[in-house]
Amino acid sequence: MNYKSLVIIVLSIATIEVSIAQVNATVVDDFKISATTQEGKQYPQVNSQGMLRVQITAPEAKSVKLDIGGKKYDLVKDSKGVWTGESAPQDEGFHYYQLNIDGADVPDPGSMYYYGASRWGSGIEVPAKDQDFYALKNVAHGQVREHIYFSKINNTMRRCFVYTPPGYDGSNKRYPVLYLQHGGGENETGWSSQGHANLIMDNLIAEGKATPFIIVMDNGTWTRPVQSAAVTQEQREKGEWPPKGWADQFSKTLIGEIIPMIDATYRTVAKQSHRAMAGLSMGGMQTRVITLANPDIFAYVGMFSGGSINADDIKNAPQFKEKTKLLFVSYGSHELDNRREGFGGDPKANTESLQKEGLKTHFYISPSTAHEWQSWRRSLNEFAPLIFK
Amino acid sequence: MNYKSLVIIVLSIATIEVSIAQVNATVVDDFKISATTQEGKQYPQVNSQGMLRVQITAPEAKSVKLDIGGKKYDLVKDSKGVWTGESAPQDEGFHYYQLNIDGADVPDPGSMYYYGASRWGSGIEVPAKDQDFYALKNVAHGQVREHIYFSKINNTMRRCFVYTPPGYDGSNKRYPVLYLQHGGGENETGWSSQGHANLIMDNLIAEGKATPFIIVMDNGTWTRPVQSAAVTQEQREKGEWPPKGWADQFSKTLIGEIIPMIDATYRTVAKQSHRAMAGLSMGGMQTRVITLANPDIFAYVGMFSGGSINADDIKNAPQFKEKTKLLFVSYGSHELDNRREGFGGDPKANTESLQKEGLKTHFYISPSTAHEWQSWRRSLNEFAPLIFK
Repeated sequence: MNYKSLVIIVLSIATIEVSIAQVNATVVDDFKISATTQEGKQYPQVNSQGMLRVQITAPEAKSVKLDIGGKKYDLVKDSKGVWTGESAPQDEGFHYYQLNIDGADVPDPGSMYYYGASRWGSGIEVPAKDQDFYALKNVAHGQVREHIYFSKINNTMRRCFVYTPPGYDGSNKRYPVLYLQHGGGENETGWSSQGHANLIMDNLIAEGKATPFIIVMDNGTWTRPVQSAAVTQEQREKGEWPPKGWADQFSKTLIGEIIPMIDATYRTVAKQSHRAMAGLSMGGMQTRVITLANPDIFAYVGMFSGGSINADDIKNAPQFKEKTKLLFVSYGSHELDNRREGFGGDPKANTESLQKEGLKTHFYISPSTAHEWQSWRRSLNEFAPLIFK
Repeated sequence: MNYKSLVIIVLSIATIEVSIAQVNATVVDDFKISATTQEGKQYPQVNSQGMLRVQITAPEAKSVKLDIGGKKYDLVKDSKGVWTGESAPQDEGFHYYQLNIDGADVPDPGSMYYYGASRWGSGIEVPAKDQDFYALKNVAHGQVREHIYFSKINNTMRRCFVYTPPGYDGSNKRYPVLYLQHGGGENETGWSSQGHANLIMDNLIAEGKATPFIIVMDNGTWTRPVQSAAVTQEQREKGEWPPKGWADQFSKTLIGEIIPMIDATYRTVAKQSHRAMAGLSMGGMQTRVITLANPDIFAYVGMFSGGSINADDIKNAPQFKEKTKLLFVSYGSHELDNRREGFGGDPKANTESLQKEGLKTHFYISPSTAHEWQSWRRSLNEFAPLIFK
């Protein structure tokens, strides 16, 4: 090799290093293992800017990408076949993501797995400044119970998760109940897994901020029963089948089976005054339909990123205004920034207009979050202290 | 193209088809979606021979493999970039597996995920002829409760899962307790997730075959406490630190904290006569060490694929023979076929020799299974009816 070649190589290396430095100029190199990284794994990691860094060994791959928040980020391969790369900064809180290896969408083998976006897959926790309210602490803890049951209405086995507050076992006390629903593409595991509903309640109760209550988290996804033969001819003739949609079918199951079962199994106060319903996104819209139609059943209503109720809605819902003790509506601030049609107008104006009608309402905005779990964790944390008082 | 070329092409195609037919000659094409396939996904599938078929879209990949049972099987790509392939027949029951895409080991995006082999990853259920005993049926169901607690001994938050039998809520009855441990590389989720311990018990109880009892499933993995500063100088001088191994450390936690906590929280019969311990593999070996040393605490002992106890062991364990009401030892038949050193001699001969010493024992062999979950599901199903009688 002559002198000239060596100069060219050195200059080329220098150029490469400069361009890497330029790309990484804004990346703060304080990446740490995330709360959602599997024990014993070194990746995924998150830095103080909320960037997600992933790493995977794929020596024969041509292309590896990180797919989060609707964008794909290219990973870079080192000489040993290890690919590493980062996303742009993400909002504080929890996000679903995946990897793409030579065209295949796969979970990150380093992450824990969650049900969302209609699949079990990877999730990442970006530490939030207010993460203390859902942290696992040395306080008295309630339990999350897997409750399996047969549903006659759906002619299938189902399950819900039931949070019983600290002290439930070993007492004779009766408790109010919140029926708390997940969003579209999620299921009955969401609120206690990525939502940390149990830890939020344990911490609120430990600080004396919330009345202890039971939470029932069932599956609100509308699916056709396994055996549609179970539907009678009479039901078809009456137009009761097929059901009119997700809210109608879940309403039948909730009112007809879940609530009576919970009241029969747990030490509840089986009264309207001691019953609440809330949900996120699709679960918020289900809450809207079901509580407007059943003011005799629910006294407290929470809609998290799932529409709103306006004065016209109340005119068409007899007794809702008289019997509802609180209507709570919330959104992530980024949702309001980018508000689309279909949310039923301006949810803040709608909610405040009802106060003039004499309904007690509370509108909450989660700062700097979008249509994601951090908005909903905060919404539960704001809603829980306001109910059953 | 002349006639001769065409003949050669036709013959070549015929040859290719013959060789594909030969390869597939033994594959019965009755593949069905598995019980461990994610809802809405079409793969993984299993056929009547116990072969696993996986499929993944990876248009740019050079090589995709299915990795199960210590072997890798090549998948074949079609013109749309979809890769499909099968494993050799697997034993009935549950197996961990993964995919390999251009050198990257990843979970199958179509499967459910389980903790085993020291990672969260894919699992596959191969239907078993006897699967009815762990099937989800319309019978009275117990609950599996996530129980979070602070451990002073380990100076950290921990959790266990607690199975309470059908009818536990709403009665004042007290119940015996089985402490049931997972294997190495597994955790406290194993017995109720891939093990189906709750469904096994629900079905046994529904058929009147087992006395209802509580099951506590904690994490027996020995790990150094997060803050070793919590260990006192006195403990170090006495040689109490570091602990001598996985059995010693878990024994301290189980005897010192878990049992008192369970007896204080649940309606147990807090007596030796109403307490059992069992475990699989590492959990069986922990059961061996802990029950030999604590005959005042446990009356029933179950070791599933985890060593055995012989006459010499009992000579060195005062009162074990007198106080133990049953020693149950089990293995998968393939484990005995391929028995390695380190299992403490011949477990069947060991177990039977103790009957001459006056100890009641039961030796069980799971037919045609290896060191895997089907052996352990069956072991629990055999063990549960024999205890607390």
